[in-house]
Amino acid sequence: MDETTGTLYGPEELDLAARNHAMPLEALRYDLTPAGLHYLLIHYDIPDVDPAIWRLAVAGAVETPLSLSLEDLRARPRVSAAVTLECAGNGRTLMEPRAISQPWALGAVGNAEWTGTPLAPILREAGMSPDAVDVAFAGSDHGLEGDIEQDYERGLPAAEALREDLLLAYEMNGQPLPPQHGFPLRLVVPGWYGMAHVKWLRQIRVLEEAFAGYQNVQSYRIRAAEDDPGRPIQRIQVRSLLLPPGHPTFQPRVRHADPGRIEVRGRAWSGSGAIVNVAFSADGGRTWIDSELGPEPTPGAWRSWTAVWHAEPGEHELCCRATDASGATQPMEPDWNVGGYTNNAIQRVPVVVAARR
Amino acid sequence: MDETTGTLYGPEELDLAARNHAMPLEALRYDLTPAGLHYLLIHYDIPDVDPAIWRLAVAGAVETPLSLSLEDLRARPRVSAAVTLECAGNGRTLMEPRAISQPWALGAVGNAEWTGTPLAPILREAGMSPDAVDVAFAGSDHGLEGDIEQDYERGLPAAEALREDLLLAYEMNGQPLPPQHGFPLRLVVPGWYGMAHVKWLRQIRVLEEAFAGYQNVQSYRIRAAEDDPGRPIQRIQVRSLLLPPGHPTFQPRVRHADPGRIEVRGRAWSGSGAIVNVAFSADGGRTWIDSELGPEPTPGAWRSWTAVWHAEPGEHELCCRATDASGATQPMEPDWNVGGYTNNAIQRVPVVVAARR
Repeated sequence: MDETTGTLYGPEELDLAARNHAMPLEALRYDLTPAGLHYLLIHYDIPDVDPAIWRLAVAGAVETPLSLSLEDLRARPRVSAAVTLECAGNGRTLMEPRAISQPWALGAVGNAEWTGTPLAPILREAGMSPDAVDVAFAGSDHGLEGDIEQDYERGLPAAEALREDLLLAYEMNGQPLPPQHGFPLRLVVPGWYGMAHVKWLRQIRVLEEAFAGYQNVQSYRIRAAEDDPGRPIQRIQVRSLLLPPGHPTFQPRVRHADPGRIEVRGRAWSGSGAIVNVAFSADGGRTWIDSELGPEPTPGAWRSWTAVWHAEPGEHELCCRATDASGATQPMEPDWNVGGYTNNAIQRVPVVVAARR
Repeated sequence: MDETTGTLYGPEELDLAARNHAMPLEALRYDLTPAGLHYLLIHYDIPDVDPAIWRLAVAGAVETPLSLSLEDLRARPRVSAAVTLECAGNGRTLMEPRAISQPWALGAVGNAEWTGTPLAPILREAGMSPDAVDVAFAGSDHGLEGDIEQDYERGLPAAEALREDLLLAYEMNGQPLPPQHGFPLRLVVPGWYGMAHVKWLRQIRVLEEAFAGYQNVQSYRIRAAEDDPGRPIQRIQVRSLLLPPGHPTFQPRVRHADPGRIEVRGRAWSGSGAIVNVAFSADGGRTWIDSELGPEPTPGAWRSWTAVWHAEPGEHELCCRATDASGATQPMEPDWNVGGYTNNAIQRVPVVVAARR
């Protein structure tokens, strides 16, 4: 038990934490997150898909419904892109009171290279209705949620589905998708939170009305109160994270570093514009310096940054705060909502610096 | 909060659960556990090892100390073996009272194919002392534990280190070791709990006295009480797990299935002998049937099994119980110890079977 906050977690939360895993923050060192370190959020079970009989259906308000095999998709134009994915619930445990769901602290993020074929030409070839409102993407993962038995299915506005940068991805970091990342096919929607990147994709349905499925209408919404219908979660809010310097205690997880010059490294990303600044603070956000930004990444990928910290003996709190080209910047405190979503408040990393030896 | 047990978990436990992840039980379907689904227990941070400058030192009571590069190791005889690894703390949360550490339920296991070169010939070439008592294996992962700053280091009795089936592994499932599994090199000790399979291996030290490091003397011991020095944890106790049938509720994680014939599948393993029987129960362990065992695996790997369950509407509790060639069998209840280790009590999987449609 945390003696400061008295925070405790229930078995429902622990069950989810054991299945769904965060990216350990030291993995911020990799520009491309290795499979197995990338965060994972799986609503039901990982399905067992036989790629030989699997087909992707393109259905609904289209002139020509399609049924595409993995070979068909691999024969189409091949595109690779590094894309930062973040779970909409990242930072949930740092909101008070806390929504009871997957208990993410800060690591529900990753930046992998996804390879596949663009979605938009397929929708055009199918003759997508000009009156399309939403496009619904259904996976093969099946379970019960909110008392509704369902395959995971999430809708995108038609204009978003037609963006040229959406991918139907069959590879991650140059390898076939691992089972846990959606084998054989997943949707990739650069700039949107993870709930849009439907895994184990089996059906794309064009709709001439708004998609009314559970994951759009009941879940993944920003609600101010239980009776607020809220608004759907879409683009990733600007955020940065730093790689905790020094070394940890096994438990509780406290950071220790030696005094002297420390190059603090991190990553920053946003769904609403390129990263233009990351500020760094070694005193809990009272004073800030600008970090040095790494090379401009391709759109949708995170940007590296570094800041030099002259660590003095004692206790310190490191923070970072990103700003994007839209002018959005990270808040000092979370913007609370019922589901515990889209918390992009600044990270705080306590570090104990040893006395000089 | 679990209304039955009132169990709650503290933030120390949640921090560990977010970093270290279990194998989701549906991954029991894979004979070889894909990377990213295999369980992970990492004491400190994943270290950043540059393979170009990395060397393995063989030191201590040897005639000729060695310094081996990854190329040197790859040029030696190459051996692949499927080996089941299980964390010694698997099942910890199912012991009452519960030790506060990594809060594993049941999934801290995996069965990967490890490729590398045998350790014993290297020890012989180095001229290991005939008076060797222990051999200590040090990793590059560095942190604080029990108030001791340390690289993770664990000792093996000399006779175990000279077994012909120990590997210095540089590949997992045919790929270079992922960072989280010990890149560039880890030790594999078939039949022993995970704490012996040292990751990010950098040094092998031959000792003419018992190894007195933290992970042997203070941690990873079976203690009946806090003041009991206890005995070191070594071989994996016999265990089986079943793949929960049907589909889950997102939270809390409850299983639902349709009535009718269900083939229940699972895996069984032991460090003290080949699996000779797995019994299956659909009534919480009151009555048992023998399952059908899959092909005899290579030594050290888990064995598949299946049992047919004629599911009737209502609530059921599925269990499985393995027995190995030494006669060891799984207990119905955990054998409690201070650290919450080596709990091989039978798994219990509640399943709600729907009414006939």
